Amino acid sequence: MGVQGCLRAVSSYSSPQVVVVRNGHLGTAYRALQLLVLLYFTGYVFIIQKGYQERETGPESSVITKVKGVTQSPSKVWDVGEYVSPPEGGSTFSILTRVDVSPAQVMETCPEGRAVANATCSSDQDCVPRDTDTSGHGQRTGRCVPQAGGTGKSCEVLAWCPVDGGSISESLAEMASQFTVLIKNNIHFPRFGFSKGNIQAAESGYLKSCMFNTTSALYCPIFKLGFLVEQAGEDFAELAEKGGVIGVIITWNCNLDLPDTECNPHYSFRRLDPKRVSASPGYNYRFAKYYSWNGTRSRVLIKAYGIRVDVIVHGQAGKFSLIPTIITLATALTSVGLGSFVCDWILLCCMDKEQRYSSRKFEQVG
Amino acid sequence: MGVQGCLRAVSSYSSPQVVVVRNGHLGTAYRALQLLVLLYFTGYVFIIQKGYQERETGPESSVITKVKGVTQSPSKVWDVGEYVSPPEGGSTFSILTRVDVSPAQVMETCPEGRAVANATCSSDQDCVPRDTDTSGHGQRTGRCVPQAGGTGKSCEVLAWCPVDGGSISESLAEMASQFTVLIKNNIHFPRFGFSKGNIQAAESGYLKSCMFNTTSALYCPIFKLGFLVEQAGEDFAELAEKGGVIGVIITWNCNLDLPDTECNPHYSFRRLDPKRVSASPGYNYRFAKYYSWNGTRSRVLIKAYGIRVDVIVHGQAGKFSLIPTIITLATALTSVGLGSFVCDWILLCCMDKEQRYSSRKFEQVG
Amino acid sequence: MGVQGCLRAVSSYSSPQVVVVRNGHLGTAYRALQLLVLLYFTGYVFIIQKGYQERETGPESSVITKVKGVTQSPSKVWDVGEYVSPPEGGSTFSILTRVDVSPAQVMETCPEGRAVANATCSSDQDCVPRDTDTSGHGQRTGRCVPQAGGTGKSCEVLAWCPVDGGSISESLAEMASQFTVLIKNNIHFPRFGFSKGNIQAAESGYLKSCMFNTTSALYCPIFKLGFLVEQAGEDFAELAEKGGVIGVIITWNCNLDLPDTECNPHYSFRRLDPKRVSASPGYNYRFAKYYSWNGTRSRVLIKAYGIRVDVIVHGQAGKFSLIPTIITLATALTSVGLGSFVCDWILLCCMDKEQRYSSRKFEQVG
Repeated sequence: MGVQGCLRAVSSYSSPQVVVVRNGHLGTAYRALQLLVLLYFTGYVFIIQKGYQERETGPESSVITKVKGVTQSPSKVWDVGEYVSPPEGGSTFSILTRVDVSPAQVMETCPEGRAVANATCSSDQDCVPRDTDTSGHGQRTGRCVPQAGGTGKSCEVLAWCPVDGGSISESLAEMASQFTVLIKNNIHFPRFGFSKGNIQAAESGYLKSCMFNTTSALYCPIFKLGFLVEQAGEDFAELAEKGGVIGVIITWNCNLDLPDTECNPHYSFRRLDPKRVSASPGYNYRFAKYYSWNGTRSRVLIKAYGIRVDVIVHGQAGKFSLIPTIITLATALTSVGLGSFVCDWILLCCMDKEQRYSSRKFEQVG
Repeated sequence: MGVQGCLRAVSSYSSPQVVVVRNGHLGTAYRALQLLVLLYFTGYVFIIQKGYQERETGPESSVITKVKGVTQSPSKVWDVGEYVSPPEGGSTFSILTRVDVSPAQVMETCPEGRAVANATCSSDQDCVPRDTDTSGHGQRTGRCVPQAGGTGKSCEVLAWCPVDGGSISESLAEMASQFTVLIKNNIHFPRFGFSKGNIQAAESGYLKSCMFNTTSALYCPIFKLGFLVEQAGEDFAELAEKGGVIGVIITWNCNLDLPDTECNPHYSFRRLDPKRVSASPGYNYRFAKYYSWNGTRSRVLIKAYGIRVDVIVHGQAGKFSLIPTIITLATALTSVGLGSFVCDWILLCCMDKEQRYSSRKFEQVG
Repeated sequence: MGVQGCLRAVSSYSSPQVVVVRNGHLGTAYRALQLLVLLYFTGYVFIIQKGYQERETGPESSVITKVKGVTQSPSKVWDVGEYVSPPEGGSTFSILTRVDVSPAQVMETCPEGRAVANATCSSDQDCVPRDTDTSGHGQRTGRCVPQAGGTGKSCEVLAWCPVDGGSISESLAEMASQFTVLIKNNIHFPRFGFSKGNIQAAESGYLKSCMFNTTSALYCPIFKLGFLVEQAGEDFAELAEKGGVIGVIITWNCNLDLPDTECNPHYSFRRLDPKRVSASPGYNYRFAKYYSWNGTRSRVLIKAYGIRVDVIVHGQAGKFSLIPTIITLATALTSVGLGSFVCDWILLCCMDKEQRYSSRKFEQVG
């Protein structure tokens, strides 16, 4: 039985029998439907979506950044070593544009700041010793002392003193829009073994004098900070005052069937943090520098407002491959048959008044 | 021929001929199979997987974090400027919970630490000058000198002296569980041009007093550090002692066919580093602060144990689109035909004893 | 009508009628085509692509790194606290290998550096007061003064003085290739609730003595820096001189239908930054250390060349699931039918000389 069945299967071919209905309208509709499916596959799936390609997204990417420029605040000059943080030149860095400096804090006792809730007191009984208020600046000593420059009294705390009060606000924004940001980006698609960078391997002095331009200097990834902010649709003065996050989005969309020169980075710029939130807008953080003076350790606490730049790299590459081509072709052929669903339904429901077609199409068996 | 063929193709429609087998069992089975396929497509593919939607994953995301609170160790008070590192308020930061401080190290010569392998010696011959042991603290001078507080002898090294010994361990954990962590997150789906943040655009004082709560304060992303650790299923005291990494995973799962208010962040918390590894558990690192005193540079070396918080943002959005709808419908229609594979097989194998059906189904041609 | 139609649909089953063509060549071709499709599905889709599995990519991952070792430059000894930056032990860190140190800069006035364009002057008229050149070091005072160690004259600036000149270049590379890098990585696939780390839960002393080796010590993720560089195909001395970025790519490719022990990390190493770019090659950055001396604040500015290590974690996991299995099976069955497209075309075009087949296959209806 098995061998015989096998032989029969191999020695013959079964083809479905069909009723051919001579009807111009239905024929035209059927062919039109098939054409539509074919157009969709050739136009959308093959040409636009490149269904014949093997794809890879999420390339390995490295970003090295470098900021250049000098600016001044009323009291001093700031260079890269001071206003860029963290200094390592990674894909995220912030550039200080305004600082509130609390100079020369020392670890000692002083009255708590007035802005702190529950800090005011009338006698020592109001201040619990060793109590630490979460929104305060230090540990309470249990004494109630006169406030720094005021008339009231506050609980005394052991803290970096004097607490926040007395800080000087200085803007660094004067020259900040002229800072240049170099963004070196290199991507690698491991599946295709393809690498490319966003700096043209031109003569060595090129990067010294060029400035980014989409049309004429695409491979010169040097941006003025003011340009980044403007492209993101923001006002530089306002952003420098309150701080914010600017995203530099580099998109590599590479068709590796074409020459390498067709695989180019595309840059877009967008403000990433919410702009119109009334609660806690902008970007700022606190950091300190520590000094030692005559055996006493002191620090300068800085509340820094800045423009944080986040470099985000997206990428995808596609290259011709046999298997996706076959799959797409097979799907296309199967889908071409879908038109008959619709036409069969029209034929039997709407055009078959005297059962002329159904008597031929259907053969009844007990 | 071509034109004639074309005309014939357009003027007629072919529909497959079928044998209708009057059999209740088979008919029911066939319709049941078709119903199953339809149910799968409407229930799973359309309703659960939303096969009619165009999707985008991996939104552009920005995270700004800010920690608040004060704590104390036996020797001093610590505020945000000291215990948060790095201070820039990015998506990854660590909060110190315990420190081993080696105060006042100076670059000079001193005996190597006892814990270093091969550091003990009996005479100068045992210490090779200019030799640097990888696990040691400095460069050997070639002399064998008495150990710091011991009776043996060690090779002398040029290093930051005194080497590790004499460090004071202090815990900062007393108030650390009360620290508040504000996590500002904003996402943007470029394909749909949709942005949303995790802070409600409410009155400006809202963030000053609220605390996160899944049901009543979802849009107040302020967490107590103790809450994060507890939600991750960890013991705060133990984690503060050894250090560890807590992941705050924010998931945005947005159906953009619904109003914006239905697109909400979902928070989950998990310990990310391995807990039950006997080798090298926990999280700690070393850093130094540098001072200058009477022309001599000294440093304070700190081995810091801490809780690192990694904010991870996932997201996907879907919106109705014609092309995925058509593709899903076409696949559904094709799949409905699959039942006939099974039923044909049952018909011919099991029910066709006198070849009643096969004689009608199959017509032999030479 | 509706009820009657329903009954009829349920009580009968329609099977397509077929013409069986007795032709060995065509039959063999048809069966061969079907075999090909079946082989593709079983071999490629089921076995290689594991089409019966539900998949998850992009696991939650945590990376903790720790560097150990000591090196020396001509002037001093460097340990982990000094040469690793940032110190927090995250997935990206750089190890200094060469430094250009500008010691003891003070905020005062001094002649601008010779390398700065437009800095040379012949009289005070050439120097605009309060002017800040982007490529310069500070704010011009308006005076033209003799250059530091030269014969010409430069505009005087208010800056961290003396400007870049006088920096001492020191190499730290002597012992750097012997530094050990510990990379603790833990992944978690939330869909499957599966976690694994790259450190074997062995006895506690294991990590103290082991060194990474693909075959014998896969679960000991301790690498010599020289090993990382060599595996990436780079020359250590050259990389240490100019700086560069080395990617450590950890790939977890897990089949969760197999035991946990089959899910192992795979390490690969690659230089991520462009090597053969003439413009701005390598990796370097500037940072400063601040001191206070007799009330005067000074700083040491360091231009640091280093090897940056980026740890990149990829991962995917698959596990048997009913729905993908059914979908793949259905697709396979549908695709097996594709052979008839080809064979019908051969049958009607090439083998049907006397219309023997087409007269049987096609039945004409008015």
